[in-house]
Amino acid sequence: MQPNDLSNLFQREQERYLREWTDLLAFPSVSTDPDRHADCLACAAWLQQHLAALGFQAEQLPTPGKPVVFACRKGRPDRPTVLFYGHYDVQPADPLAEWLSPPFTPTLRNGRLYARGAQDNKGQLFYALKAMEALIRADALDCTVKILLEGEEECGSNGISLCLPDWKDRLQADLLLVTDTGTVASGAPTLVMGLRGIVQLTAAVVGPKHDLHSGMHGGLAPNPAEQLARLVTSLHNADGSIAVPGFYDGLEGPSREEWDKANEVELDAARYEEETGVPPVGGETRYTAAERLGFRPSIDINGLTSGFGGAGTKTIIPARAQVNLTARLVPGQDPERCLQAIADHLQRNLCAGLKLEIISQGASGPGFRLPLRSRWVTLAGTVLRQVTGREPAFLWEGASIPVVTQLARVAGAQPLLSGFGYEEDRIHAPNESFSIEQFKLGFLYVAELLRRI
Amino acid sequence: MQPNDLSNLFQREQERYLREWTDLLAFPSVSTDPDRHADCLACAAWLQQHLAALGFQAEQLPTPGKPVVFACRKGRPDRPTVLFYGHYDVQPADPLAEWLSPPFTPTLRNGRLYARGAQDNKGQLFYALKAMEALIRADALDCTVKILLEGEEECGSNGISLCLPDWKDRLQADLLLVTDTGTVASGAPTLVMGLRGIVQLTAAVVGPKHDLHSGMHGGLAPNPAEQLARLVTSLHNADGSIAVPGFYDGLEGPSREEWDKANEVELDAARYEEETGVPPVGGETRYTAAERLGFRPSIDINGLTSGFGGAGTKTIIPARAQVNLTARLVPGQDPERCLQAIADHLQRNLCAGLKLEIISQGASGPGFRLPLRSRWVTLAGTVLRQVTGREPAFLWEGASIPVVTQLARVAGAQPLLSGFGYEEDRIHAPNESFSIEQFKLGFLYVAELLRRI
Repeated sequence: MQPNDLSNLFQREQERYLREWTDLLAFPSVSTDPDRHADCLACAAWLQQHLAALGFQAEQLPTPGKPVVFACRKGRPDRPTVLFYGHYDVQPADPLAEWLSPPFTPTLRNGRLYARGAQDNKGQLFYALKAMEALIRADALDCTVKILLEGEEECGSNGISLCLPDWKDRLQADLLLVTDTGTVASGAPTLVMGLRGIVQLTAAVVGPKHDLHSGMHGGLAPNPAEQLARLVTSLHNADGSIAVPGFYDGLEGPSREEWDKANEVELDAARYEEETGVPPVGGETRYTAAERLGFRPSIDINGLTSGFGGAGTKTIIPARAQVNLTARLVPGQDPERCLQAIADHLQRNLCAGLKLEIISQGASGPGFRLPLRSRWVTLAGTVLRQVTGREPAFLWEGASIPVVTQLARVAGAQPLLSGFGYEEDRIHAPNESFSIEQFKLGFLYVAELLRRI
Repeated sequence: MQPNDLSNLFQREQERYLREWTDLLAFPSVSTDPDRHADCLACAAWLQQHLAALGFQAEQLPTPGKPVVFACRKGRPDRPTVLFYGHYDVQPADPLAEWLSPPFTPTLRNGRLYARGAQDNKGQLFYALKAMEALIRADALDCTVKILLEGEEECGSNGISLCLPDWKDRLQADLLLVTDTGTVASGAPTLVMGLRGIVQLTAAVVGPKHDLHSGMHGGLAPNPAEQLARLVTSLHNADGSIAVPGFYDGLEGPSREEWDKANEVELDAARYEEETGVPPVGGETRYTAAERLGFRPSIDINGLTSGFGGAGTKTIIPARAQVNLTARLVPGQDPERCLQAIADHLQRNLCAGLKLEIISQGASGPGFRLPLRSRWVTLAGTVLRQVTGREPAFLWEGASIPVVTQLARVAGAQPLLSGFGYEEDRIHAPNESFSIEQFKLGFLYVAELLRRI
């Protein structure tokens, strides 16, 4: 089976692939929403059945949270074992009003399939499954393949994190294959050499027993909304660095070579602004964009909620004010300690008369970086070059796949991260999409990699 | 007709008063909510009909917003003319989940009637109407009484403000009687000697075209939520004073006598905290509570809205962040200029890469203070003493009735503000209520004042 055969095969099967992918996207498997729990279970069941039909031994592994879909197909004993990781859960779809087509009614427009999860991660996991299917049907899959699809990546991977140590034996592998990543802005195929870790904190400043009349209490009662704004502001210094004592403790900087390699990928500021609507001027002023994303941690405000948000006037001092935040971590930073440092900082800076309530917190995983030279990185580079005709870029990614570090350690495998996400896919935002073209590149990459491994 | 007669009459009629008051409260006349427009109109129609039945010439005066209910009953030409002002609109009822009984299904519990508007202002206007009714039926109402009930007090009084100059002739009066006020914490009858003015501003920091993935953009894209927090924080200095250049321009301090009188009413900090849940530590540290409320302006954050506010995790950099704020003004401050100063300050402090969008703004009325000695203040003091058996307090109120200053000027009348609101009434908050006892005091006060005027 040659690369051209794979490409021809994709053309022949494309319609069916799209149909099945559409079925997968129709499950509103929003893991953070308790009302969607049954939808998550249904999605897991669909995947188990699908993998069994492809010739895998497929099962569902229970966790304290959503079940994990696990599948295995034995290969020749002298060939390596590949563990493929993906997730079947998706981000919430709100704000719903901004979707041009319903988020769970996948809709094809101009060669792109629009749906929540179209890319992240149902699109990027499904091309991998179809690549395996193609090799199996052509009797060209020699290595042992294990598949692990979790259902809580978008809300902290808590269930799988707790269970992984128990699954150590069945997960043993040489290579941990992950496609839940994107390319650099130029669209060149991209090897992700590092991911940031993540912690999350939802906290509220709690004040009056009920909303107070702002005329009778303005200048008298302490205002939770104003105090929350002050606390949020106190998290950063004027130069964009983080002002939380202890937050940077243990941070490991990159080597000179990593530093230089990262800066080879230059951010096109004009293109960034065109795609996102803002210039890339956030974060620390004394680092380049690549350095900020790849080697520097950040604290990001995901939401502020307090009092009245309508267009009219409601003259109140709100009873409470909530902030949802996440922090991205780099190697050396301890997630639990960072979380505690942020919570302590908020508590320490709180004014008299108001209380701080921690609503939820979670430390999901540390950041990591891959060795620059290794057998798998070299092979993946060759395959990417062959499939796309372009020189692969090395990327130290700003995003997190919290479970990947832990999974690599438990499985004794080296991670290899390369996926085909573009900025225009708008993952986590309204109108998420993934193109047939991207799907095809992913399909060819995984098939060729597994064939040559 | 003697004070005792009025008290006995109240006992006899109480059940009917309560029934009619309940009918009035059942209208969800939330003026800021476009969906409640028809309810506001229905409420106005009910009041017009009610006043006609009492013997007034009652009509509805159209405005660009909600209609004003106007009624007049001629008295003896040698007696003064009293203009009574009230409003039939109410604040929004949300958060609905916190109400123990539905906000527009008035419910009597332990001698208190619970409903949105139970006090503000339907309770405090309805006891005045019942007082007039009692005098009319006893043929004891000699003075000319005009009644003006507007429907937009809770959202800026825009309609009436625009029309008042055209109504100059019909509004001419000697005394402008207002009961939309509260008592000091001790519950002593209270003459309000001043009100703060108010302006409102709703603005948004606008960033990315859509929510961005906080992993791929954290530390890269400027974050509207964080920037909004920074702007909100920049409105105040560390000592609680307002940091907006030009905001204090023209501010007129009180006289030594006013200053001393205001400080006679001491705030019971322990009681304040018990009632509100917070100690009275907001605002400027170098002024007493009475000074802060009566003589100092404030900027109050009424709401913050940005991104994700759920209990889970949504890893985004929000596309926008909104603040709803109001400022309370004191005599000498020009509302339009204060509003402009705040907007300019926000614009000037905005970081690169983000935009400021003014969603709505309104300058409703300046602050004012009454002369300490006047015929009406003296008479009201006597009546309050007689009705309640307690010494009246003088209060420079923190709240605003924006239209009162304008109305007094147009009508050529001196305002007289005394009402029976208590902190426990929870106006503007869930479970607003007003007791039968308070209703009765208000009834006796208005009846006796009009009898002796």
